[in-house]
Amino acid sequence: MAGYILGIDGGGTSCRAAVADPQGTILGRGKSGAANILTDPNNAILSITEAAKAAFRDAGLDGDGVGEASAFLGLAGTNVGDLARYVHDRLPFRHTDIDSDGLIALQGALGDGDGAVAILGTGTIYMARKAGTVRYIGGWGFTVGDLGSGARIGHALLQEALLAHDGVRPRSAVTDAVLDEFKHDPRGIVEFAHLSKPGDFGRYAPLVFEHARARDPRAVAIVEAAAGTVDEALDAIMALAGARRLCLLGGLAPLYPEWLSQRHRAILVEPQADALTGAVALAAARQRERTGASG
Amino acid sequence: MAGYILGIDGGGTSCRAAVADPQGTILGRGKSGAANILTDPNNAILSITEAAKAAFRDAGLDGDGVGEASAFLGLAGTNVGDLARYVHDRLPFRHTDIDSDGLIALQGALGDGDGAVAILGTGTIYMARKAGTVRYIGGWGFTVGDLGSGARIGHALLQEALLAHDGVRPRSAVTDAVLDEFKHDPRGIVEFAHLSKPGDFGRYAPLVFEHARARDPRAVAIVEAAAGTVDEALDAIMALAGARRLCLLGGLAPLYPEWLSQRHRAILVEPQADALTGAVALAAARQRERTGASG
Repeated sequence: MAGYILGIDGGGTSCRAAVADPQGTILGRGKSGAANILTDPNNAILSITEAAKAAFRDAGLDGDGVGEASAFLGLAGTNVGDLARYVHDRLPFRHTDIDSDGLIALQGALGDGDGAVAILGTGTIYMARKAGTVRYIGGWGFTVGDLGSGARIGHALLQEALLAHDGVRPRSAVTDAVLDEFKHDPRGIVEFAHLSKPGDFGRYAPLVFEHARARDPRAVAIVEAAAGTVDEALDAIMALAGARRLCLLGGLAPLYPEWLSQRHRAILVEPQADALTGAVALAAARQRERTGASG
Repeated sequence: MAGYILGIDGGGTSCRAAVADPQGTILGRGKSGAANILTDPNNAILSITEAAKAAFRDAGLDGDGVGEASAFLGLAGTNVGDLARYVHDRLPFRHTDIDSDGLIALQGALGDGDGAVAILGTGTIYMARKAGTVRYIGGWGFTVGDLGSGARIGHALLQEALLAHDGVRPRSAVTDAVLDEFKHDPRGIVEFAHLSKPGDFGRYAPLVFEHARARDPRAVAIVEAAAGTVDEALDAIMALAGARRLCLLGGLAPLYPEWLSQRHRAILVEPQADALTGAVALAAARQRERTGASG
């Protein structure tokens, strides 16, 4: 009965869980709603428990068996405040380890090897592991961070459209697309921006990359500026950890490579597996440590 | 009894009013709290009314006399949405004209002549008047506009401090000053930024200019980038109105000239009067139009 392990990937839109045997072979998977410990820790606890039970049932096991399992959770927002401790103490598992969503993504992408990972999505965060030590750069969020993120690129586009409207900078196809969408009323752009969360800005990022590929000068300027901030951060994380390989993750990962400097393009590798797989691997490793099976 | 006019200058930090006789001679002044129609229109209505009554009392008049007055209000945020109409319909004055805070500033600075004005404060807006027609550029607010403003400069400093903390960009005295203030905990900067309004960011702008004058490289980079956006906008407004003289207003007006291009420095003039005086002049002009005293 005992010995089952759980990998859990909890994020702002959904929570995924996988149950595995002690060797890490996945037996079943489950999914539930948002697990954002920053905005709603109590709901996150419910979502995490629900996803875990669903994974057990998917494996043909009794859902109540989660109480005997050892779980490793990768959760967004764990770097802020004492919420991780609050959630930890209220989960039903026999053993619970909580770390960042970044760490399980890194584990999934790189396996047990050294290297660097850049998550380029609505936000941006950079990580590198060397000899078991993981270092982080960025991940501070949209308000005063996340340079190069989809949210910042979308934000830059709206700003560029206003500058084009005012005649301060030249128009182009990409700024015309935005002005058309808002019926050439700059107040509509301002009001949209006031109501927008990072994800709302981020939805404009693919449009910017698309126009940049077609050599739209304003789109190229935005993407080149964003890529410059990514190159800067990659230089810093590479220097911290002496990484020799780099994996890009997140929604912008397929779009960014051609805009990055050659020194980074040259060491790009494909991710080995996803974050949930990384969480399972980390759960198995912690379980081995606890049972003294290692060393 | 009738015939008193009110000039009102309502902004995000305070509201000032002046009561004058029909010829525009100021008889009394009053001041109250914030009148930001964008973020709190109902409180703006209270502040405007309070400042007007205080001006009447300062002139030795009954505060309730404001109900007979003709007021001209220059308010921030009047270019966005229907809030100006909402506020207009709820003010106690006999006649109420609402226009932008920029227009009363331009009137005060340039009198009845042609020319351009840049308001460089917590936000930025550019105006030029030619043959009675006023053109505007910018003024879209902090979220997707106000490039070169104190708020954007302060925001850029906090962002630069996080990048310095992460080792992505070099440290300097100005980023060290911020990191010292937040006890080298980047989470403190992020939390501050989340809670900050534009004015809170803007309070860091003088620090950036001070370090830039001392040739701090990160401060110079921030100020040069900001000044580049101001030069761009000035080129655009000058081209629109063919202006031959330029007046800088706002808290950053004394700090900016040395960073602007020579073509703009060469045509700088001092303001003739302040925005409140401009509001009184516009109130007097409107009153003359209404009573048929003109033309």
